[in-house]
Amino acid sequence: MGKKVNKVVLAYSGGLDTSVILKWLQETYQCEVVTFTADIGQGEEVEPARQKALQLGIKPENIFIEDLKEEFVRDYVFPMFRANAIYEGEYLLGTSIARPLIAKRQIEIAQKVGADGVAHGATGKGNDQVRFEIAYLALNPDITVIAPWREWELNSREKLLKFAESHGIPIEKHGKKSPYSMDANLLHISYEGGILEDPWNEPEEDMWRWTNSIEEAPNEPEYITIDFEKGDPVAINGEPLSPAKLLEALNEYGKRHGIGRIDIVENRFVGMKSRGCYETPGGTILLKAHRAIESITLDREEAHEKDKLMPKYAELIYNGFWFSPEREMMQAAIDKTQENVNGTVRLKLFKGNVFVVGRKSPNSLFAPEFSTFEEDQVYNQKDAEGFIKLNALRFIIEGHVRRKK
Amino acid sequence: MGKKVNKVVLAYSGGLDTSVILKWLQETYQCEVVTFTADIGQGEEVEPARQKALQLGIKPENIFIEDLKEEFVRDYVFPMFRANAIYEGEYLLGTSIARPLIAKRQIEIAQKVGADGVAHGATGKGNDQVRFEIAYLALNPDITVIAPWREWELNSREKLLKFAESHGIPIEKHGKKSPYSMDANLLHISYEGGILEDPWNEPEEDMWRWTNSIEEAPNEPEYITIDFEKGDPVAINGEPLSPAKLLEALNEYGKRHGIGRIDIVENRFVGMKSRGCYETPGGTILLKAHRAIESITLDREEAHEKDKLMPKYAELIYNGFWFSPEREMMQAAIDKTQENVNGTVRLKLFKGNVFVVGRKSPNSLFAPEFSTFEEDQVYNQKDAEGFIKLNALRFIIEGHVRRKK
Amino acid sequence: MGKKVNKVVLAYSGGLDTSVILKWLQETYQCEVVTFTADIGQGEEVEPARQKALQLGIKPENIFIEDLKEEFVRDYVFPMFRANAIYEGEYLLGTSIARPLIAKRQIEIAQKVGADGVAHGATGKGNDQVRFEIAYLALNPDITVIAPWREWELNSREKLLKFAESHGIPIEKHGKKSPYSMDANLLHISYEGGILEDPWNEPEEDMWRWTNSIEEAPNEPEYITIDFEKGDPVAINGEPLSPAKLLEALNEYGKRHGIGRIDIVENRFVGMKSRGCYETPGGTILLKAHRAIESITLDREEAHEKDKLMPKYAELIYNGFWFSPEREMMQAAIDKTQENVNGTVRLKLFKGNVFVVGRKSPNSLFAPEFSTFEEDQVYNQKDAEGFIKLNALRFIIEGHVRRKK
Amino acid sequence: MGKKVNKVVLAYSGGLDTSVILKWLQETYQCEVVTFTADIGQGEEVEPARQKALQLGIKPENIFIEDLKEEFVRDYVFPMFRANAIYEGEYLLGTSIARPLIAKRQIEIAQKVGADGVAHGATGKGNDQVRFEIAYLALNPDITVIAPWREWELNSREKLLKFAESHGIPIEKHGKKSPYSMDANLLHISYEGGILEDPWNEPEEDMWRWTNSIEEAPNEPEYITIDFEKGDPVAINGEPLSPAKLLEALNEYGKRHGIGRIDIVENRFVGMKSRGCYETPGGTILLKAHRAIESITLDREEAHEKDKLMPKYAELIYNGFWFSPEREMMQAAIDKTQENVNGTVRLKLFKGNVFVVGRKSPNSLFAPEFSTFEEDQVYNQKDAEGFIKLNALRFIIEGHVRRKK
Repeated sequence: MGKKVNKVVLAYSGGLDTSVILKWLQETYQCEVVTFTADIGQGEEVEPARQKALQLGIKPENIFIEDLKEEFVRDYVFPMFRANAIYEGEYLLGTSIARPLIAKRQIEIAQKVGADGVAHGATGKGNDQVRFEIAYLALNPDITVIAPWREWELNSREKLLKFAESHGIPIEKHGKKSPYSMDANLLHISYEGGILEDPWNEPEEDMWRWTNSIEEAPNEPEYITIDFEKGDPVAINGEPLSPAKLLEALNEYGKRHGIGRIDIVENRFVGMKSRGCYETPGGTILLKAHRAIESITLDREEAHEKDKLMPKYAELIYNGFWFSPEREMMQAAIDKTQENVNGTVRLKLFKGNVFVVGRKSPNSLFAPEFSTFEEDQVYNQKDAEGFIKLNALRFIIEGHVRRKK
Repeated sequence: MGKKVNKVVLAYSGGLDTSVILKWLQETYQCEVVTFTADIGQGEEVEPARQKALQLGIKPENIFIEDLKEEFVRDYVFPMFRANAIYEGEYLLGTSIARPLIAKRQIEIAQKVGADGVAHGATGKGNDQVRFEIAYLALNPDITVIAPWREWELNSREKLLKFAESHGIPIEKHGKKSPYSMDANLLHISYEGGILEDPWNEPEEDMWRWTNSIEEAPNEPEYITIDFEKGDPVAINGEPLSPAKLLEALNEYGKRHGIGRIDIVENRFVGMKSRGCYETPGGTILLKAHRAIESITLDREEAHEKDKLMPKYAELIYNGFWFSPEREMMQAAIDKTQENVNGTVRLKLFKGNVFVVGRKSPNSLFAPEFSTFEEDQVYNQKDAEGFIKLNALRFIIEGHVRRKK
Repeated sequence: MGKKVNKVVLAYSGGLDTSVILKWLQETYQCEVVTFTADIGQGEEVEPARQKALQLGIKPENIFIEDLKEEFVRDYVFPMFRANAIYEGEYLLGTSIARPLIAKRQIEIAQKVGADGVAHGATGKGNDQVRFEIAYLALNPDITVIAPWREWELNSREKLLKFAESHGIPIEKHGKKSPYSMDANLLHISYEGGILEDPWNEPEEDMWRWTNSIEEAPNEPEYITIDFEKGDPVAINGEPLSPAKLLEALNEYGKRHGIGRIDIVENRFVGMKSRGCYETPGGTILLKAHRAIESITLDREEAHEKDKLMPKYAELIYNGFWFSPEREMMQAAIDKTQENVNGTVRLKLFKGNVFVVGRKSPNSLFAPEFSTFEEDQVYNQKDAEGFIKLNALRFIIEGHVRRKK
Repeated sequence: MGKKVNKVVLAYSGGLDTSVILKWLQETYQCEVVTFTADIGQGEEVEPARQKALQLGIKPENIFIEDLKEEFVRDYVFPMFRANAIYEGEYLLGTSIARPLIAKRQIEIAQKVGADGVAHGATGKGNDQVRFEIAYLALNPDITVIAPWREWELNSREKLLKFAESHGIPIEKHGKKSPYSMDANLLHISYEGGILEDPWNEPEEDMWRWTNSIEEAPNEPEYITIDFEKGDPVAINGEPLSPAKLLEALNEYGKRHGIGRIDIVENRFVGMKSRGCYETPGGTILLKAHRAIESITLDREEAHEKDKLMPKYAELIYNGFWFSPEREMMQAAIDKTQENVNGTVRLKLFKGNVFVVGRKSPNSLFAPEFSTFEEDQVYNQKDAEGFIKLNALRFIIEGHVRRKK
């Protein structure tokens, strides 16, 4: 046990692990526990968490259950997609981007209920503990942070189950437990552990829960359009949708067509590599579409500078630095570029593939009249000679100098 | 006409356009023309170019026909793939990477035959003129560069055909001419122009020449392995292959499974946007595999620094700066990281998709014993607390300072 | 002569060269000439330019003389100093930053008077032609740009003088002409040419016009304070000053103490190296002070990201891309960081040196209570162990893996 | 006490603190202690450490005293200066660069004597603990690291002195103890603590130990030349010197002329800001000279890419990641650029200032014939027009498109 606390806001899923944490907190810290359960699109009902919490002795006024889907997509997912963020060339940061929001709400609830502590159920070797705790401390430097997995002795499945049993925590016995550690939200679902721990093993088909396999995906392509305003998607097939509704709809398309599965080995911030499999159906479509609308609306050099900033920006989100001045300064740069990122992208979804097949924009900088072969007013082919000559001048001089030697 | 020249080495395909250039050079510059035709895997016979050249009055000793496929893949394609180079998030630089090699050989031949000029058939609005000419001048600052498309008056198809006719250049009448401007080599084939000039138009299926459509691709996945040594692929399914043979084999796999089509709007170095469609079957597989083998053999921070360098590196190649000190300094950094990039990647190819399903390496840094949940010697979960606390310290201090105000 | 124009706005200094340009424009283009003379602190009277212009036949309503000093410092110099911009490790960009403003006013005046052309007096081998013309075209893509030095035949001093004589342009015969090509504004004065063309030659003491030599500088140090608000200096020794007045005052301090001379070889955008000597007295003080106030008010990582952006930002300004989306996106990032850059810096000026001797801020993040050796609440020394262990974890794993081999 | 150890190699200065550590290690860990004392130019005799160690019961064969000055400068300082490394715009990394070498020798000695532990005397809030320990673990992942300052209870001056007294450690009573915490090596001397903890306080003149004040510095300038080979200085005034001798000589020049004092607030890796004052006389001269020789021998773009890498490179050294793959990959890039960095720089040293007054090189890329105003073969002024037009083309198109709206 660390520092004494009176009241702790726990990120509570209603599942076995966080229920154990709940009791353990009460017992170990002798503190009042406030549960916070957020619907961020993980695909499970959140209301049952209320019953569970009541059952475990939490006072009704200490139970917070919130639907954060719109906030999640609007204020976290979309800003991140403006940057085309990808971690290590592959990962769309689905878990990383959800943690700051949960943490922020915990801190806000702590403020509201006068709690002096927050707790989470992330383990001691992963990235999520870092993401939660950096966010907590960035938002309230005085809060006491409790990370039960790093503190307690319940470091095996057996001990955990035994603790649950002895504390009256119901253990659901629904068939066979998944061998994978999973996390889900509106952006993605992730799998770790089990046979994935050997990176040479192919995941079994039945591990994937969200998307059709390529075999199951329809044998006919499907075409959709996505409209963008200031870099954010606002409509599908011309129908305006709220951020969360839009991402849900894209997820449906992606799931149907088997889009967005990846299987990678990634580098954790805490210093080791880990294998992860992810399904990000809607996000995979969105990233492709966003790049496509940028391709006709961004200036070349701002696009290139964005690309140069991106790896660091993605690293910041992965490592848990969403609430940091450096992320905010990069976001300011990124958002500045999105003012003209308006228009429509047409996509063909087919057997795991997202093909861009059309893009148009009232702000399009694509001016075919300048790039065709015929003469025009703006571009004089003769200009190319001077352009090349001066771009080569440093080499010409270097060549002369080197030769003289 | 520009500066007087005596002998010019022309990058000669044997096609109509470069045949017109050949005669135009003779006529305009009154110079001896040396033809250089390279097989870089464009998929057309190069020997017919000899006949054509002879027919157009080129002396046998002035005709150079070379198979550069191995050099192309070994010294240009592979170094570029070590960097995971992608231009503007999509383009694998298939055309860009071939130009420096052609240019280099032209300069070497010029030296050999005592030529004082070089000429190419690239137009005045594209990137290729820049790539050719910067390479020429970087390798020989005194060479005279002739870019007929920027100089002559044959600026329409009609004028060109008329010139051909009046100069005895055979015009092949093989059915319907492709409406697209194309370029091909062992790495890719590209399409521009025609209906692509409206970026809202979807390319017609019959434009694509190299890869099966998703419909045509087999209904069964295929698994392959690729072995890497120092970052370069060296064997497929355990069979060692030379660089060019290996890329050819990957192309076959990619073509069969409909892999590597993209349709983008890109930013040219000369300042305008252009629409391009590309098929890069083998390269698409290779990039995925290379990232996968890196994922278990590269240290996190060197991987991240590589990713941060990459956009600039790709830009340099796209813009034509292969033979530049800045590309070479980046290459030195990239190559330094590849010393341990050895091992095998297993891939599943299916309906346009490349799935990584396994990777192993004698140099693997993936150490599941450190990332599992149980206790171990190396990683003490308690360490995470200090790690997080000090990473958050600047926020804690900032929070206190801000609050005091 | 290029394209026909009716009315041209000329950046007119009133000196011999731009007077020749004025007549040459009238004669060559048969166009109406509008003169624009700006006071940007170059240290010469601008009103005489009116007399000169009238004398050369310019209509009174076509003569524009403006004091742009405040706009120059507020909207160009200060934003640049927020970035701590230095080109190639040494150059404070004094000339580069003035060109966009001149160009912008020319375009605005052209709009006002209905002119269809603009002209400048920069030569054909330097950076300034690029800076002027890119700014012109970025602000009005239809404007016709005339660069007399690239067009005319007056390519020697003799021809120029002869043209002047034959066109009634007064040639001032004030003693010996400086052997150096100079440019000045409120931020700096520059010297090129003459004996500087051999980079081994030391400039003669009497070349320097603005600052005292170290010998002449006072033998006593002088202390000043500079107050900052949101990254911009607002007061000296507690006295609030407008941007231009403040820079003027800093120039006085700098001049007195021999501050801000540099002698460098720089890389021009047009591809060659050139030798330049610069005096930037106030700017040199300001840069030092700005970094000092940032040192206590910026978060570490935002400071480091700023430093990483800076070389590119400086390059953009040097190359003439002030009015570009990429500069603007970087500025958005930079300005975002300056919100808390408030406070006071104390400096000691002495014999060419600027020593920072104190800094304080209401937003100071310097918290000595956390960095002293004694125990405290916030920083537990034990945390350092975990911090180090996890930062080293990747090396530990790499070491184990390597050893096993 | 942490893990059990049998034999520990201690970085031993012979001073009070590390003598206390020595006894504390023996007592606490019941282990054999091996002392390692390095001469890295700190300006104190190292031989007395032998007597001290013997006196404290260390066996003669367990006492290692080495002169590492040449290795320090050749393999650490010079590679770093090739990069023009500066941390946070000011700090030349004098302390940071010495730690990896000490750590490396400790590990090598541990291997030699069969020790299983290493220990250092750095405190628990600073950067040095990180630098030592990351280096230890990078070089031997199995070594046990002991950081007494983080472990023991001797956390006040009084306790320390009491421990010394009770363990027979001689306490030298030489006049008044400096109020500053200091560190020195051939590259610099640093000061922290005391009145510096208020960043508004100016350090007292008598704090500075190495350099003359501006007042004391000679009233006459002194000129020197430095010769470079592949980016490293090799001779002063034409006289070849070994790395350490050369830096010593530069230090003498710098000290005489009052060069290289800075007073900054810096951001520590452990998360807090700290005030530091530094004297780096020779290094300050060297940095200026190195940039000057690069200015005529590096290509523009390689120079700019170096500048873009530098902040990260400096950060790595500051944070203690010298022995990391990411530092090595950057070093590979940097070293690649230095192949032609040969030649001579002439400097004027005067009253704290280092003025570059001349530079020449057999590899000079400065070609005044291309930058003068007269016509030449290589640079046709007309080329500038095309160069500018195509550089501006994206703005022209953007302007047209925006206007159409």
